[in-house]
Amino acid sequence: MKPEEFRTAAHALVDWIADYRERIPDLPVQSRVKPGDVAGMLPTSAPVAPESFDAVLRDLDRVVVPGITQVQHPSFFGWFPSNATLSSVLGDFATAGLGALGITWQSAPSLTEVEEVVVGWLRELTGLPESWRGVIQDTASTACLVALLAARERATDYSETRGGLQAEPAPMTVYTTEYAHSSIPKAVALAGFGADNLRVVATDPWTRAMLPEALAEAVAADVADGRRPVAVVVNVGTTGTTAVDPLAEIVPIAREHGMWVHVDAAMAGSALLLPEMRGLVAGLDGADSLTWNPHKWMGAVLDCSLMYVADPQHLVRVMATGPSYLRSAVDGEVTQFKDWGIPLGRRFRALKLWFQLRLDGVEAIQARLRRDLANARALAEQVEAAEGWRVLAPVALQTVVLRHEPRAWVAPDGDVLDGAALDAHTLAWVDEVNSSGAAFITPAKLDGRWSVRVSIGAEPTTSDDVAALWHLLRTTAERD
Amino acid sequence: MKPEEFRTAAHALVDWIADYRERIPDLPVQSRVKPGDVAGMLPTSAPVAPESFDAVLRDLDRVVVPGITQVQHPSFFGWFPSNATLSSVLGDFATAGLGALGITWQSAPSLTEVEEVVVGWLRELTGLPESWRGVIQDTASTACLVALLAARERATDYSETRGGLQAEPAPMTVYTTEYAHSSIPKAVALAGFGADNLRVVATDPWTRAMLPEALAEAVAADVADGRRPVAVVVNVGTTGTTAVDPLAEIVPIAREHGMWVHVDAAMAGSALLLPEMRGLVAGLDGADSLTWNPHKWMGAVLDCSLMYVADPQHLVRVMATGPSYLRSAVDGEVTQFKDWGIPLGRRFRALKLWFQLRLDGVEAIQARLRRDLANARALAEQVEAAEGWRVLAPVALQTVVLRHEPRAWVAPDGDVLDGAALDAHTLAWVDEVNSSGAAFITPAKLDGRWSVRVSIGAEPTTSDDVAALWHLLRTTAERD
Repeated sequence: MKPEEFRTAAHALVDWIADYRERIPDLPVQSRVKPGDVAGMLPTSAPVAPESFDAVLRDLDRVVVPGITQVQHPSFFGWFPSNATLSSVLGDFATAGLGALGITWQSAPSLTEVEEVVVGWLRELTGLPESWRGVIQDTASTACLVALLAARERATDYSETRGGLQAEPAPMTVYTTEYAHSSIPKAVALAGFGADNLRVVATDPWTRAMLPEALAEAVAADVADGRRPVAVVVNVGTTGTTAVDPLAEIVPIAREHGMWVHVDAAMAGSALLLPEMRGLVAGLDGADSLTWNPHKWMGAVLDCSLMYVADPQHLVRVMATGPSYLRSAVDGEVTQFKDWGIPLGRRFRALKLWFQLRLDGVEAIQARLRRDLANARALAEQVEAAEGWRVLAPVALQTVVLRHEPRAWVAPDGDVLDGAALDAHTLAWVDEVNSSGAAFITPAKLDGRWSVRVSIGAEPTTSDDVAALWHLLRTTAERD
Repeated sequence: MKPEEFRTAAHALVDWIADYRERIPDLPVQSRVKPGDVAGMLPTSAPVAPESFDAVLRDLDRVVVPGITQVQHPSFFGWFPSNATLSSVLGDFATAGLGALGITWQSAPSLTEVEEVVVGWLRELTGLPESWRGVIQDTASTACLVALLAARERATDYSETRGGLQAEPAPMTVYTTEYAHSSIPKAVALAGFGADNLRVVATDPWTRAMLPEALAEAVAADVADGRRPVAVVVNVGTTGTTAVDPLAEIVPIAREHGMWVHVDAAMAGSALLLPEMRGLVAGLDGADSLTWNPHKWMGAVLDCSLMYVADPQHLVRVMATGPSYLRSAVDGEVTQFKDWGIPLGRRFRALKLWFQLRLDGVEAIQARLRRDLANARALAEQVEAAEGWRVLAPVALQTVVLRHEPRAWVAPDGDVLDGAALDAHTLAWVDEVNSSGAAFITPAKLDGRWSVRVSIGAEPTTSDDVAALWHLLRTTAERD
């Protein structure tokens, strides 16, 4: 496609995107398509001859949009916020338009250096240690795997250069809680530690936060059994209830045994943009790595996960490659981000952060985050005050975990009298809410029973939207 | 940012991108900035208040563009082509504008199903086995790691569910050649096999292709020593010389030992769009996985790597997660791509392929690839015919590996008389070419000496551009 054809088509696409964003509030939040509906609308083979851009644009409306659960909708309260702010979309568009290739510093010096600077800005804005350095990974899943690989290799004095993990004598163990994100046990598995060597440390029954004394005991028991504790994944803002493990108490235990401390703050990291929330990661100075996702609450369009490390050499020693065709005269003076993660080829991801921070400004982002925290607290208070409703976990961030608990099945003190009936009721009214298209919330199991996560923080969500949601929840659940 | 502000800014950005693409031929191909130049132009802290879009746009010209080696330039002959066709840029822009969240089928059914369909189109277009299924990964580096993790787990009857790799008795071995991409030994290291268990199989001195009998011997020796051969990475189009390992002869050896066969066709995969080039992967039916990168020669903007597998259950068994908050009623009926790779959150990457195939049409893409193959053959013929020049490897694809060999240092039969002088000469004239800004080529070591890779295939590169390059190479190298 020539630049002039692109110009015409892209202007049309800009208008389509702006129109689409404007009409999102009128769309059902949850996609209503059935399995196979979308695929069934597409031809079985690729087109031999070019189609018009109009035809493609029409298919965005006909095929694509109905098949999307609208996470940019003001009444999206599901999973976690997944904001794609239009300022960051502009940056992402510039990334694609430039078509730069990030393989070495030389291939695109500005890709590397803008990333260094902007990731540095965000380090400062979130109050992370000045000496730490950061890199953009695709997701927190990958970042956690990278951290565990670095931990594994540091603990084995770089076994990858010899016989690998399979030649290691004593088994290595990794610690986290049952509330860790599913990507944590997955990373433990992929890194080769094995499920038997993942320790699920006990948590406080109300806060769901790791109990440091339980960690200390688990570590001591493994050491006594001849195992090697090598890493602890500290959850700051779990997916289920945004539980916050006590980092400051965990770090000394880990350091005593030379363990790698990885902080998974995928969701909570955005909150660190607010100075008053920095207590979430008190004690970070003694940790090794932290990851958070600007592509969640802050609003950089997917995929954009920040990974900060106390010492990048632990990544470089594990990940570096140096084929002759990638060498240059400046190799010693520059950062080679290819050596900080798994992929060689990297997108110019920093542009979406750079654009968003500059076009929105930090104050406006902070104001939005504070709005969401206040909305969550206000909702929690209303839920607490409502007959037959219960808040099931502390509201540490912007997510309220709640349940409608009719007295037939739950005693006033919270004792569940008929769990099966309660679960059926919960799933039924959540499905009714989601099927209505008016709002989207996520059912999740908590202590073995279905609960409901209301995760506030979509960019356009106001207090009115939260009030409307609460009205919808009450009328739906209480009617059933 | 509101949709109306976005509309205004995005229209300006469209024109900026179209103008930029038009003026790329006038830019120096290799970026001339020095380490720290780009970072030095940026403020040390993020802006508190919003800046104007004009200011950001000016910085694309002032800060970003000078710091990019112009891989979209008609005289870019470096590394491998990294085309970002404007048709695919439109698709990528739609991806960002939609802001969809790919975590489960439910979160964006069209993200999953368009990916299934378009990846299926490309399976058909490249002649891969009908029963194979595909997924988009970020890069071939990640895809190879995923393949080796799947191989590791299949070979250990899923050790990740027990004691992990560290509990496995006999060491497992992996096979490839010295010409494998740097991501292959990296993946071996990350997967925990250890460098000692990576077998570098002997190759033919001219084709640099794996010698099947050497593979058979290496495997037999490991088996005799009590090791377990678990995987072979077959290189179809190496980075150095686009060497092609003989898949059809490798597969039977691998199958005899139950080894996983992963085909790394990162570059060569685009050529499979041409029916006459399918011989590159003859014998694929017995392999387990193949990866190729539409973000290289074909031209889908970074990052977009296709990974096809004979049986996706081998990925799912290793990668699947199922937290309660991601469950839905249709889980059994749909594809969950989160279980086919490392990240949970995925971009709607299929749109850039869908847009490119529809807007360009397959015939035009094929014609461009054939143009590049013809240009490479023509260049190789001219090099061969020129006094003092030599083509150093078969031209299997679109890359010509060559050297200027003055008679003072190289005998007419190719015997290098003074290697140090020859290397100094090669690096000097390549640096002169690249520093001129007129073209960009990549020096690379081959058989211990510096050679020059001329990798043809940037989207705008015509036979005139190749002729101009050849003239530039001659005048530069022969003058020195």
